[in-house]
Amino acid sequence: MKHLFIDMPLKANTTINLERNLARRITRVLRFKQGHKFVLFNGKDGLFETTLTDIENGVATLGDCLQQQPAPQHTALYLALTKRDAFDRAVRQATEMGIDHIYPVETEFSVPDKLKTERLDTIIQEAAEQCERLTLPILHPHQPLKTALEQAEGKIFWADESVAKENTLGQWGSNPTTLNDGLLIGPEGGFSDTEKQQLRSHAKIVRVGLGQHILRVDTAVCVGIGRFFDHLQA
Amino acid sequence: MKHLFIDMPLKANTTINLERNLARRITRVLRFKQGHKFVLFNGKDGLFETTLTDIENGVATLGDCLQQQPAPQHTALYLALTKRDAFDRAVRQATEMGIDHIYPVETEFSVPDKLKTERLDTIIQEAAEQCERLTLPILHPHQPLKTALEQAEGKIFWADESVAKENTLGQWGSNPTTLNDGLLIGPEGGFSDTEKQQLRSHAKIVRVGLGQHILRVDTAVCVGIGRFFDHLQA
Repeated sequence: MKHLFIDMPLKANTTINLERNLARRITRVLRFKQGHKFVLFNGKDGLFETTLTDIENGVATLGDCLQQQPAPQHTALYLALTKRDAFDRAVRQATEMGIDHIYPVETEFSVPDKLKTERLDTIIQEAAEQCERLTLPILHPHQPLKTALEQAEGKIFWADESVAKENTLGQWGSNPTTLNDGLLIGPEGGFSDTEKQQLRSHAKIVRVGLGQHILRVDTAVCVGIGRFFDHLQA
Repeated sequence: MKHLFIDMPLKANTTINLERNLARRITRVLRFKQGHKFVLFNGKDGLFETTLTDIENGVATLGDCLQQQPAPQHTALYLALTKRDAFDRAVRQATEMGIDHIYPVETEFSVPDKLKTERLDTIIQEAAEQCERLTLPILHPHQPLKTALEQAEGKIFWADESVAKENTLGQWGSNPTTLNDGLLIGPEGGFSDTEKQQLRSHAKIVRVGLGQHILRVDTAVCVGIGRFFDHLQA
């Protein structure tokens, strides 16, 4: 059954008026008919069986709670601002993979298009619908790298290209990962020498590698998160 | 230094005429000047220091061999034909990550755009230049899933969504991976029930998971290859 995100409170066995955009999408894009069954989630209350009961007025009736809302997690992706397409893909893929917080980070070599929060929220919602996750990652306001490092609660695993070039995987193994930890992915072109120095000497930073090749931002995000979660599970 | 692919034999301390497209790219897009130094590779002979010695006639002089050609490997990605954008991204990302053979596979739920080999070759070349790998993956002609399975030389790790839903990682650990093994990623919408049955009972197939969420094709390729190489190294 199709999973759809809705930004309003959900409770089993109640009737709701769908917000206008969602009602349009359901009838015009997805072409649901009266009586069509689907599932709704809002990132807070769980997953609810839903029936479209009144197309004209966009009314839906919630049935049972099919899945309880999972407990909030705290894994974070610190993602250097970079060109729109790559940033969009990275945000989508991080959502699919289950990251909980996304912190856009300003760096010296960032060549960002303007960060359009609304577009990114849509990307996040659609990715969550698609991959059937019940929580949405929180997209935080962008901030300088230095501020992000100061405010981080756990360790930050930095995918450092120079570790990759040494053809090692760095310190993944020797640093037990906790749910407050995060992953840092630099911009296209990498970090500046000054930034690299700051990162290398920073107490919260753990230098890790992602393999021997230089990866584009979106690929680095996927490979990095994969490895990050492996170490959470280990 | 910029890495550029060229499809002709390379030998240290010789002079070559650059093919027309590459000569144009070097002067018009990259804006190299007379005397500019860069590196060339052809996927067969290694990495060569190069100087642009005659812009007018597109002549370049090769210096030393900077890196020997690595020995050919045999890791394979079996990738279901799917919409162009997703397929293109998956091919680029597989190249960045170091896969050696890409086998496009016809499946029941494949909704392929026409497979444009020329465009994919360009994507592969640019990705290899970007990530500084010296070999290019070989893009094989597309073939039915059944044929691909018959002709595979090693085991094929199939990223099976039902394994993911069981919230396990399947059999990655229990099957030592060799360089002849491959990874199989299905189309958007997954495999058909018939195909799933074939795969589950096939001697070469090893069912594995990629985590608890349903991943888009490009994300599945990255996560899958990451895990695949982890097990090659282990």
